[in-house]
Amino acid sequence: MGELILTTFDWVPDGPRGYVRDLRVRWALEEAGLPYRVESTPFQDRPAGHFAHQPFGQAPWLTDGDLSIFESGAILLHLGELSEALMATDRRGRNEVKEWLFAALNSVEMASLPWSLLQFTGESQDTAVWKLFDGFLKTSRLSHLEPVLAEREWLAGAFSIADILMADVLRLVDRFDGLAAHPASKAYVTRAEARPAFVKAHADQMAHFAAADLLRG
Amino acid sequence: MGELILTTFDWVPDGPRGYVRDLRVRWALEEAGLPYRVESTPFQDRPAGHFAHQPFGQAPWLTDGDLSIFESGAILLHLGELSEALMATDRRGRNEVKEWLFAALNSVEMASLPWSLLQFTGESQDTAVWKLFDGFLKTSRLSHLEPVLAEREWLAGAFSIADILMADVLRLVDRFDGLAAHPASKAYVTRAEARPAFVKAHADQMAHFAAADLLRG
Repeated sequence: MGELILTTFDWVPDGPRGYVRDLRVRWALEEAGLPYRVESTPFQDRPAGHFAHQPFGQAPWLTDGDLSIFESGAILLHLGELSEALMATDRRGRNEVKEWLFAALNSVEMASLPWSLLQFTGESQDTAVWKLFDGFLKTSRLSHLEPVLAEREWLAGAFSIADILMADVLRLVDRFDGLAAHPASKAYVTRAEARPAFVKAHADQMAHFAAADLLRG
Repeated sequence: MGELILTTFDWVPDGPRGYVRDLRVRWALEEAGLPYRVESTPFQDRPAGHFAHQPFGQAPWLTDGDLSIFESGAILLHLGELSEALMATDRRGRNEVKEWLFAALNSVEMASLPWSLLQFTGESQDTAVWKLFDGFLKTSRLSHLEPVLAEREWLAGAFSIADILMADVLRLVDRFDGLAAHPASKAYVTRAEARPAFVKAHADQMAHFAAADLLRG
């Protein structure tokens, strides 16, 4: 392992604060107790060098020595390989972590992200489009996740990177009260957010952007 | 490695044929030349045992001996560990494959799936919702992917599981003519679909569902 450097935006508007995806990486690093430092890249007027690290111009990315990694899923999988606190080391346990890691991103967030976009834009809940995406999230996804989370504390036996991703995905649903009919999912988010590593990661992200406000005057 | 068994639906309607996600797994298995067999699970009246393998009631899943794996991303990553034809073995190469694998699913498909849903439902292109999701796909994603694909044959040096996922994601966009303004992306899909392993996987999926039509009479 080389020096770990997490790069995120220098500033973001108030809306996404507390939900920018560097949170997932900070959270994993804090859970593992791995040393790291944070660097900033401009949110506005993104330089060409940004796209060399993150082809879509998003944040974060992580460097580990000579390796530069983008996509929060890929970064967390990389960190999972570095720490038993983040991913089981036996074959079955690793498989469980990985399938739930992809499920968080590709089954649940695939449905929750468009739903959240409609919340942000204030789409009326009477439209066919609203009903389509609301059903995709709640009927096709949350209704199946709920009985799983009612039965277990964490997705893959012990707490893992799969929980960091799933809980962070569900946090954004909860922000718009989308978990009201899914109490086990809501309790899972509460349980995850109570972890000291989450609390520190969240506070650090908020402080990072607050410091940028001061610099902007 | 144990015996590899791919389980998919016994039947699906005409619409999704050629795009059901078992295609991704078939394609990877064919590229690697790994022996496997295909089993079926009911599309209608899904039994409880289905949810034990795939908590959201979707398909496919793969069993490898005593291991059962759901999520096409997790399955392809597992197969990538089994074959150099699917994933580089050096540290930098593996990292590139993994970040692009997640990018295909979490940056591109995250935007293309809601866009495709609106195509399926025939949403008018005059609405704010259409413009939101069309911009999310084309401005935020395809416009950044296009210069990458204009410069390289495959995403991570040699052909890999990242290309199977990215090409399959883009195929569904192309089905609705969404790549018209992105010729390098369109050429990439054409290049991927010309591979013998894709051709066989696609033909096998079509034959699988056609056989089910005969059984249904």
